[in-house]
Amino acid sequence: MNNFGRLFRISIFGESHGKSIGITIDGCPPGIALQEPDFTPDLSRRKSGAKGTTPRNEEDLPDIISGTFNGYTTGAPITVLFRNSNTRSADYANLQASPRPGHADFVSNAKYHGFQDFRGGGHFSGRLTLALVAAGVVAKKMIAPVEINAYLTQAGGSTNIDEAIEKALATKDSIGGIVECSASKLPVGWGEPFFDSVESIISHLVFAIPAIKGIEFGSGFAAAKMNGSEHNDAIINPEGKTATNNAGGINGGITNGNNLVFRVAVKPTSSIGKSQQTLNSISGKVEDLTIEGRHDACIALRVPVILEAVTAIALADLQRVAQAQKV
Amino acid sequence: MNNFGRLFRISIFGESHGKSIGITIDGCPPGIALQEPDFTPDLSRRKSGAKGTTPRNEEDLPDIISGTFNGYTTGAPITVLFRNSNTRSADYANLQASPRPGHADFVSNAKYHGFQDFRGGGHFSGRLTLALVAAGVVAKKMIAPVEINAYLTQAGGSTNIDEAIEKALATKDSIGGIVECSASKLPVGWGEPFFDSVESIISHLVFAIPAIKGIEFGSGFAAAKMNGSEHNDAIINPEGKTATNNAGGINGGITNGNNLVFRVAVKPTSSIGKSQQTLNSISGKVEDLTIEGRHDACIALRVPVILEAVTAIALADLQRVAQAQKV
Amino acid sequence: MNNFGRLFRISIFGESHGKSIGITIDGCPPGIALQEPDFTPDLSRRKSGAKGTTPRNEEDLPDIISGTFNGYTTGAPITVLFRNSNTRSADYANLQASPRPGHADFVSNAKYHGFQDFRGGGHFSGRLTLALVAAGVVAKKMIAPVEINAYLTQAGGSTNIDEAIEKALATKDSIGGIVECSASKLPVGWGEPFFDSVESIISHLVFAIPAIKGIEFGSGFAAAKMNGSEHNDAIINPEGKTATNNAGGINGGITNGNNLVFRVAVKPTSSIGKSQQTLNSISGKVEDLTIEGRHDACIALRVPVILEAVTAIALADLQRVAQAQKV
Amino acid sequence: MNNFGRLFRISIFGESHGKSIGITIDGCPPGIALQEPDFTPDLSRRKSGAKGTTPRNEEDLPDIISGTFNGYTTGAPITVLFRNSNTRSADYANLQASPRPGHADFVSNAKYHGFQDFRGGGHFSGRLTLALVAAGVVAKKMIAPVEINAYLTQAGGSTNIDEAIEKALATKDSIGGIVECSASKLPVGWGEPFFDSVESIISHLVFAIPAIKGIEFGSGFAAAKMNGSEHNDAIINPEGKTATNNAGGINGGITNGNNLVFRVAVKPTSSIGKSQQTLNSISGKVEDLTIEGRHDACIALRVPVILEAVTAIALADLQRVAQAQKV
Repeated sequence: MNNFGRLFRISIFGESHGKSIGITIDGCPPGIALQEPDFTPDLSRRKSGAKGTTPRNEEDLPDIISGTFNGYTTGAPITVLFRNSNTRSADYANLQASPRPGHADFVSNAKYHGFQDFRGGGHFSGRLTLALVAAGVVAKKMIAPVEINAYLTQAGGSTNIDEAIEKALATKDSIGGIVECSASKLPVGWGEPFFDSVESIISHLVFAIPAIKGIEFGSGFAAAKMNGSEHNDAIINPEGKTATNNAGGINGGITNGNNLVFRVAVKPTSSIGKSQQTLNSISGKVEDLTIEGRHDACIALRVPVILEAVTAIALADLQRVAQAQKV
Repeated sequence: MNNFGRLFRISIFGESHGKSIGITIDGCPPGIALQEPDFTPDLSRRKSGAKGTTPRNEEDLPDIISGTFNGYTTGAPITVLFRNSNTRSADYANLQASPRPGHADFVSNAKYHGFQDFRGGGHFSGRLTLALVAAGVVAKKMIAPVEINAYLTQAGGSTNIDEAIEKALATKDSIGGIVECSASKLPVGWGEPFFDSVESIISHLVFAIPAIKGIEFGSGFAAAKMNGSEHNDAIINPEGKTATNNAGGINGGITNGNNLVFRVAVKPTSSIGKSQQTLNSISGKVEDLTIEGRHDACIALRVPVILEAVTAIALADLQRVAQAQKV
Repeated sequence: MNNFGRLFRISIFGESHGKSIGITIDGCPPGIALQEPDFTPDLSRRKSGAKGTTPRNEEDLPDIISGTFNGYTTGAPITVLFRNSNTRSADYANLQASPRPGHADFVSNAKYHGFQDFRGGGHFSGRLTLALVAAGVVAKKMIAPVEINAYLTQAGGSTNIDEAIEKALATKDSIGGIVECSASKLPVGWGEPFFDSVESIISHLVFAIPAIKGIEFGSGFAAAKMNGSEHNDAIINPEGKTATNNAGGINGGITNGNNLVFRVAVKPTSSIGKSQQTLNSISGKVEDLTIEGRHDACIALRVPVILEAVTAIALADLQRVAQAQKV
Repeated sequence: MNNFGRLFRISIFGESHGKSIGITIDGCPPGIALQEPDFTPDLSRRKSGAKGTTPRNEEDLPDIISGTFNGYTTGAPITVLFRNSNTRSADYANLQASPRPGHADFVSNAKYHGFQDFRGGGHFSGRLTLALVAAGVVAKKMIAPVEINAYLTQAGGSTNIDEAIEKALATKDSIGGIVECSASKLPVGWGEPFFDSVESIISHLVFAIPAIKGIEFGSGFAAAKMNGSEHNDAIINPEGKTATNNAGGINGGITNGNNLVFRVAVKPTSSIGKSQQTLNSISGKVEDLTIEGRHDACIALRVPVILEAVTAIALADLQRVAQAQKV
């Protein structure tokens, strides 16, 4: 459902074209400096405007409406609100009858019996990742000095990313990509057997991000082709440092003190300018569909900062649980 | 931690060489026929003895110690117990000082301050997947007529699986593999925004299985190289059937009525007969380590039935939640 | 922590003198008519202004900022926001050094290391019950035709309530009270063994309301003096109707089809005009304390509508869980 | 449902006349000495045999089947099993048609469609409190040096408890009672706003104990008759000690460093030797019912040790959460 976490808990709400979207962050300790400008760097990284992302120019200004006092967290739930402004609902009015391929239109209509806010994807919109990024800013502060970095390693199957995007834009099409994320300076011991492995918690959150199709940790899918003698990481010092890092920094679901490393696959944006086919629920026939409006040519461009955010959120929760269990 | 689920809830316990392992299954409705022999087919599929798996021959007999009456579930929690018998603890006695590469030995020693049951991996042992398989048998009954099938598609990078295993056995090494899982006859509408997408819940459970390094749904990592115009699945009938299934049966985190399809990467067994290197915590030096005892040459051979089990568990929980939300 | 519920989930946030207070309501089905005026009757019942309650006159206007579309719930989380306006922070500035007896000042200062928003009780303020009342309005719609009614049965030990309050006001003191709550038209079967009995869920929420000191169901504390032969309620028809209702409508933690009945004890308002004693943490001495500002002479006057709200919230969650378990 | 807790989590299972009852305790830190004899004192206090309790003489021997190694907890889930032996199912065979007044027979039959194990109350049996007592033993070790003590203050409305019980036995009737529980040496700061107040967590667990009809903290129901000037506890030293303890050791839902004090009302045992009336579902008529078998004349006699157990369980969970939030 719409909240997640055992001790560091987030509750998300809002719709793309409703009044607002927002997130409530519970379980943040008191005394952490937090003001609106702290969100700017990560929100800017996610923001529209880069080549290949949509030109929606509203300012995405966060408003901290609870949980801070005199510039510091208080220990009470922190709610960060983003009010929607530059919305063009009319673009979406005709889509209700014709569910867009690759989107949640068909399933949400069935599940919510037509009552869902269908404008711009409503609650399913990628715009809700704004709220994840905001929660990630708080989580990153909590887990310092742990550092998280994610970046796009390829788009459309190519490492020549700009060129691949130009080509997609020129053909009114879209492309997918691969994003790699790593975290350094992690202690040994975060992650909980049996069901709350580091991989379990991270992947749970990662698959809440729209457009993610796969995740792999350390050696990932390449492990399937390896021998044990090459895959096993030899432990070479008392802090647990290993000669190689096929484990991706995790053994038995628990951080081992090496860098946490994982990669995700991002599908090509579902909304494309090219004509497609879908069922028209009124005519009952498969018809051509052209989606007007603003589209990202490569949604993967926005994913790194979101991936950092959910990684930080996952680690903040596991940090708290690990701390709770100290003798 | 050691339980999972919102309405269909499982709690796992036990150690490889302790008295027993078991699982408590809460949230199963009353009136489902359930007796010990119902577990036999799936437990047999997981069992030791196939080429490439270890010859541990204890019988793995399940004992239903609560939650059934006159051969039917009662609505009360069902506990299934497996008593350990054929254990050879002595094999593991000398491993405490020398953490085995690829295993949880090092992290569990740090996290549990040396109090962990280290024999055979203790609570981290793959033997606990017995309990998952048992819970899967109950879950499969709940979600009928949904059918789940998983199988090993390649081992050691080859589709010639027997040959790859023979080769690994001959070299005292191990190999990884890929397992594909699909579920058919699913209704539209299981899965919950924002955080409990079908992918989120399945991957959460999948990464509780030891040795899993990656998961991908539908097109998976291949999506990163595709264009939107080829990736989007055209909807072709009122039930939501699509011309292709790159989505893997899921849109917006919700089942769309097509087959659910995903694949996982399984690493090569960490325990190998070949000599390896690790830090000896007594001498403080990196030394050679040879692991005696029983090892699987290809742990991926056991994964299909376990993967079916966790998929059934995930779907049973999402089924209940979807049913709860009906108007 | 700051959320509650298994399927019908509420997340509360805000402070008395911060920007706002609010609540996010997750798990409400789509298609329920919901607009701001729907909140007016219950919010008015809770509102300041009645004799014995404080004259804080801000309008407490609810703003639904997510989860509805065209006047109906969508199935997405509903956030209701109340912006704070008429706040007089200066009244509370000098209280940080002198914790008010009966309030959370001392414990919150210790727990949050002085970072808590201490103005007007901050996150501990009774003003947060506004948010509970709002969630109760939604819950009441969900559980219709179940009807819930609560009322003040005595104040200051007397059933002559107005007179008791006049006397308290005249002496700058405050008085406690008893509130009884009942729910009718309940089906048989809500409530879950072992830990989620109807009493467990209701009392969990009831003790989140500030100033509640006790709760009793049906015969309650009087049961301690009764014999089994008089306490047992004889079942007299196939629907489970009983001749008496000492059970308060619950057996084995599950609704039995009779009226749910319980009572709570409300302590006298802690803030009083009379001079009191407390430790001054600067001087280190016990000193006189006079609390300026607005106080309720009898906080119990506000409790009935809040009690109805948490009862509705509890029942809405149990309703969903019961529905999930249907075969 | 059948588990409870955020970090210290218990999962209960079993039936009165099934193979066994048991409990799995998750979230206990490693390194706590724990062996079967540690359970003896508390289990003996709960045991059958005291005057007014039933003469069921099975030995109630606990078996720790997971989670310990070499006499210490490991950090893995601890399962404690009690095998049932001395059961007389035949006593209960004729009760299915005639639901016993005061018991869960009617509601469980409706909720579980006749599939419930009805023998001796099945999963609703008071015998499951054995498992709570076992978990309480572990929890008490975790929260040391906190000390918890509960005792029966009155039975049948009288402080002359033995006499009241003799009288009930003589008339084949039963009586209720009041049990008071207190905890000393508590630190300041356990308990979590908004929903996880100390009172919320304790009462949630207390109402899982069969036969509890009410709970009150500190001044309790007497508070309803008091003035604020007499109810407020003056703070008299820097550790938060108060001159009186009407708060029962809790302000704003958080421990304030004074003794935690609460009382519960226990109803008279529902099973009595006296003839009663109930509906016979076969004849459709209200008929006389005489319950054969073993009955407690005063179930409240067994409650003190169970109340201590659930208090310890609640506090152990809140302790962990408080520890997690330390900066």
